[in-house]
Formats: sequence, structure tokens, C-alpha cells
Amino acid sequence: MPEVIPDDSVGLVTPQTFHCDTPLTLRSGRVLSQYDLVYETYGELNASKTNAILICHALSGDQHAAGYNSMDDSKPGWWDNAIGPGKPIDTTRFFVVALNNLGGCSGSTGPTSINPDTGKPYGPDFPIVAVRDWVSSQAELADHLGIQRWAAVVGGSLGGMQVLRWSIQFPQRIANAVVVASAPKLSAQNIAFNEVARQAIAKDPDFHDGNYLEHGTIPKVGLTQARMLGHLTYLSEDAMRQKFGRDLREGKLNYSFAPEFQVESYLHYQGEKFSTRFDANTYMLMTKALDYFDPSADYDHDLVKCLSNAQCKFLLVSFTTDWRFSPARSKEIVNALMEADKDVSYACIDSDGGHDAFLLDNPRYHAVLSAFMNRIANRLEAQA
Amino acid sequence: MPEVIPDDSVGLVTPQTFHCDTPLTLRSGRVLSQYDLVYETYGELNASKTNAILICHALSGDQHAAGYNSMDDSKPGWWDNAIGPGKPIDTTRFFVVALNNLGGCSGSTGPTSINPDTGKPYGPDFPIVAVRDWVSSQAELADHLGIQRWAAVVGGSLGGMQVLRWSIQFPQRIANAVVVASAPKLSAQNIAFNEVARQAIAKDPDFHDGNYLEHGTIPKVGLTQARMLGHLTYLSEDAMRQKFGRDLREGKLNYSFAPEFQVESYLHYQGEKFSTRFDANTYMLMTKALDYFDPSADYDHDLVKCLSNAQCKFLLVSFTTDWRFSPARSKEIVNALMEADKDVSYACIDSDGGHDAFLLDNPRYHAVLSAFMNRIANRLEAQA
Repeated sequence: MPEVIPDDSVGLVTPQTFHCDTPLTLRSGRVLSQYDLVYETYGELNASKTNAILICHALSGDQHAAGYNSMDDSKPGWWDNAIGPGKPIDTTRFFVVALNNLGGCSGSTGPTSINPDTGKPYGPDFPIVAVRDWVSSQAELADHLGIQRWAAVVGGSLGGMQVLRWSIQFPQRIANAVVVASAPKLSAQNIAFNEVARQAIAKDPDFHDGNYLEHGTIPKVGLTQARMLGHLTYLSEDAMRQKFGRDLREGKLNYSFAPEFQVESYLHYQGEKFSTRFDANTYMLMTKALDYFDPSADYDHDLVKCLSNAQCKFLLVSFTTDWRFSPARSKEIVNALMEADKDVSYACIDSDGGHDAFLLDNPRYHAVLSAFMNRIANRLEAQA
Repeated sequence: MPEVIPDDSVGLVTPQTFHCDTPLTLRSGRVLSQYDLVYETYGELNASKTNAILICHALSGDQHAAGYNSMDDSKPGWWDNAIGPGKPIDTTRFFVVALNNLGGCSGSTGPTSINPDTGKPYGPDFPIVAVRDWVSSQAELADHLGIQRWAAVVGGSLGGMQVLRWSIQFPQRIANAVVVASAPKLSAQNIAFNEVARQAIAKDPDFHDGNYLEHGTIPKVGLTQARMLGHLTYLSEDAMRQKFGRDLREGKLNYSFAPEFQVESYLHYQGEKFSTRFDANTYMLMTKALDYFDPSADYDHDLVKCLSNAQCKFLLVSFTTDWRFSPARSKEIVNALMEADKDVSYACIDSDGGHDAFLLDNPRYHAVLSAFMNRIANRLEAQA
């Protein structure tokens, strides 16, 4: 727990709930007649409501992006290094909104929520949501907050896909787009990794076709395996070599099937920790949203055409050792934006952090992000 | 089935069994008092017994490297494109020996064999074997066949590790070493992938801690998942993109958790096919042998020192898109061999085949292999 909350923290924050009664027709054709979105805000909305930043989370993120929910918290929100007073997303200048997406498991309506039609948890009956559905629901939240246009929408990985989607779906409502460590669509390899992870969950006998809550079980083994695999692919091979190499747990080989190498123990620990905090149906949904994302599909698979109506400025960031969403995938977006004559900046950051680098405090990454965000704030304050 | 056996095939072959009564003390300290090795041979041993080639198999290989075991076989052995009359490993010039390694599941003594001490299958009690144990048992087979010195030992991936080990363990008994798509030891990332695959098997309720035969079950789900993950990592991202891209099974998205993309179906098919032919305990053992392999550990972790007593000529081959055992890993071996003043040739082959490229018929790969093998045959025939 933080004995003293640091000066550059947003401090103690309390999640809020937006209840939306406007039915949402999903990409799949199914309809959510009502839903809750849980969100946090940091900083203050200016009088003209022009300084709002939306933070979109990735696979396993939530609304708690910065600060502390209680003095008992052992650590701050998941992107605390980038959001706060004087930080790249400076809460003395911006009003920051972070939410838990539909289908999540941190308070927004999702598989663990009660289905108002049945009085029981949705479980596997919760509809599969697409990135566009998240963006639609985020627009409802913006309306609720009185935000006509985001100063910026910001996200990494699956979060970056939401940002791209905002620029296409609501071009008038987003002034700047920050797309970090993302891709215009998953590759066959990406989809394959997701399917292996889903299989680990789906084939866990405690999963019960997603009805585990009814059975009083949790597919802990499957979730652990899915996370072990996911986590492994978020790290760079270099970082794993430096951090673990071939170090042994007990200094010698035991010739048994228990974990012998440090890297094995580490992955088990990460997998098990995740399995106690995350919902399996949500994990399944989130990976499906990743697989399905392909905005160019509606534009003859032409990414240039797809992005041609975007009106915002773009910042794209990738990381050298990210092999899940490699720099080449960001460059596909950059090239399409250039060809569509959009205003785009791009930085490929030297980092050994792999895909996880988008969450880490890398000086050049944060300098690039700060510069882009500060120019936005400067323009806003000059207009004021 | 082959209607007519092609002219460049070794034809119909019958596996043979070598029963060894010399106890083998394993790396783990445990002792196998006796064991069988199943092997096939192609071509004819010359009078001086100098033209013998040993083929070492990889994780899921076996003794059936070339030709057909029956006219009903739907396809030939696993390396038929490289072994046969006029092929890179030319059976008109060489006598080729291919075996199933100890711990395997194709007839050599392994977890599915009867433990003579108990009268029941070894199951999980079969000792964990190391690459050096395989090489020791292969030397017994060489003695049995009257082969004092192999003209070459050849292997890819885990097979290449056996070749390296031969050059260190029996420097007098190997004239040439062909090490394809291999590594001097696994990286932390390699080990992590293996552990995720092992967990899929170990946590399958049908695994019963390895005693599935006694329970009348097979951990089919776990084996399928392990193979899906393995297979995925053997392919290059490029090849997956070309072969599957984002092609859908049914031409449209169904918004369900059943496989929707072709790449998912393909992996399911590969995984399920493997699960019906391979033994789970063998899979566990083989991945452990991979993890443990690190011959330099006995030489102060100095690969140059480790290889300094080798006396053979070396050919190293790697493939550009192999990310499981990348060209950089082969170069570590090449550099150590150069520094140890050994005779080494190295070719990095342009291929989109990923790690699996070592099994494929790539013209430059086969030209390099042919040239190296033909020089060996020419030298032997000049001495005759």
C-alpha cells in the first residue's frame, strides 16, 4: 500500500457507473437493451469541455488506469506511469476518462453481470462484442459526460484498435488519435495464439461451456494456461534471456516434470495470479474482439479507403522487440494514413520490453507521448 | 497408398529391433538394465563399413525416415525427400540408419513399453532421458551393426542436438556432422513454450499423472493443445499469412466460439491428428530432453571449450524465417566452431517454411546438403 500517495499521482479515485438505457445493436446483430459502464476520471473538464482524453484498455485492462482506489491498494492503476500531474497525459491540463469495456469483468456489464431478462448471470450467453460496439458504447458515455469531441483517444494493443475505430466511426468526435503497439487487423499467427489460449479455457472441465458460475467452479487451470501463453508472447526473447536465461530454481536439475527453470516458475506465478482476478468468459470475448477487428473489411479490404474519412491527427508508436504486434504492423497503418493524406507522426521505440513495452516507462516513449499530448494542450489553451 | 513406388524411393522397408542388454546409466542417475531400439536401414553397408550415416530424429519423429513400410502406406517416411537413390542422402552410396530414440513411442523402449521389473507399462515411471543418453544408446546400436565410425551423423532441431553431442561425446566415431535448424541450448522463450505445452498435457484430467494407460484413457485434449501450440511455433508468420491469412471457414463471421478462421481449423486438425498417434508421456520426455540440452554446462558454459575436442567436419544449416531456432542460434555454434579452429561450413537458407523448413524440399537446402554429402561419398570412394 502507498504510505504516502506520490505528488505526481492522481491520488485516490472512486469508480463511477454510467447506466445506459439506449439499446445497443451489436455487430453480431444481437441487442443489449441496457448496460452499465464503470469508469474513472482524473483531472478536470474545462468549461468548453474540449480537454477530455479517452483511455481505451487492452485485453486484460479495466477502468482503473491511474491512482489508487483505496489507501490499502498495493499498487496504482495499470497506466499510472503515463497519467498524472506532469506525466505524459498530464491531468493538470487534461480531463482523463478511463472505462471498463462492455463484456469486461471489472464492473461494466459483462458475462458475470445479471441478465435482466433472466435474473441470472449472463455467463456464456453474453453476446460477443466487437471493437465497434465498444466505440459505440464509449460514445454514449461521452454524451453522458457532455463531451462532444475528445481532445484525444489513446490506447495500446487492443486499445489502439478502439482508437482507430473511433477515427473511422466518429471522425467528428476525435481530434487526436494515439495508437500504440497495435495493428490494422490480426495476422493468422495472432489468431492462432488466441485460439490456443481459448482452447485451454474451453477444455477445462471446470469451464462447463461457460456456465461455471452456476456450477460453483472457476476454470482456473485453463485461465492459468491461457495467461502463461499470452504472457510469454508479450515478452521479448531478449528480455526473457536477460531476466531468466537458463537459471534453475534449485541450482541443479532434478529430472522431474515440476518446473526446474526460473522462467517456468515465473510463468506459473503470472498465470495463477491472473486466474484469480479475471473472468474466463471475458477472456474468451476479448480475444474474439481482437480476432474480428478488421475495419478495412467494410472498404473492399482497402485500409487507405477505410481511413480516408478520418479527420484527426495521428500518433503511432511501436516497439522494436514487439513480435506480437511488430513495428511492421504499425507501419501498415502509417503508410495507409500517409497515402490517405492524413496528419501522422510515427515513432518506433528501441525497447527490449516486447509487446508489454506499451505499458512500461521508457524515456523516449514517454518523451514522444508527452510532446504529442503537450502540443494538444497548448493548442487548446491558445484557443481558450 | 503408393500405386507404384517411385524410382527414387528406398522402397519397402521393414523395421528391425536391436535388443541391448548392457545396462545404461542415464544422465539422471537412473539405470535402464535393458532396452530395445527399433531402426530402419536404407542402402548397403560397404565392406569396410565406412559409409554409414546415422539419422537422428526430432521431437515427434521416429525410425521411419524414408520409403514405405507397406504398400498400404498413404505416405512415405518423414524425410523421404532427402533420403533415397540420387537424393541428398544418396542410398546408392550410403548405408543409412534411422532409429526411434529411447523414450519414444514407435517401438523403442519408452513409456508405453512393459517394465520388465513390474510387468506393467512404464508410464510416467519411465526415466527422463537426456540427449547424451540417446547418443550413448545410438553408440550401442552402432556397435551392434559393426559401425566403428559414422561417415556422418545428421539431424534437424532436437536431432541436430544429438549430432552436436556425438561430436563431443564420441569424437573418434563421427567423421562428419550435419546440424540443421538447431541450437546449442534452448532459450528461456523456448523452455517457456515447452512448459506451456507440457501443462496442457499434465492438466488434462485424462492424463492421471501419466498413468492414463492404467485408467484406460488418453489425454487427447491436452496432446491436441500441446501440438496446436507446437505446430504454430514451427510455422513462419509469413507462411501462415500466405496459406491462411484471415480466410473464414464459412465465408462469414458467426460470432461464436467455434473456429471461424481457416487457421483455427487447420491447427485443430493438426492437433487432433497428432493426438491419435503420439504418446503423451513421450511428448513430455522429449520436451524435457530439449530443455536440458546444454553441453557447454560441463565446460564452464564455454561452447568453444566444449567443442574443442570435436574432430569431425561440420555443416550447419539454418532457415531465415525459423523463429523457434533462429539463424542466430546456428551462428552461435558456427562461431564457437570457428574459434575452436574446426572445419565448418554454414548455410542460411531463404525459406518461408519457419522451423519446419528442415523437413521440406527446398532446392538450395538440398543442394547444400547434397554437395556436403557427395564430398563425403567421393572421399570414401577414393579411399576404397
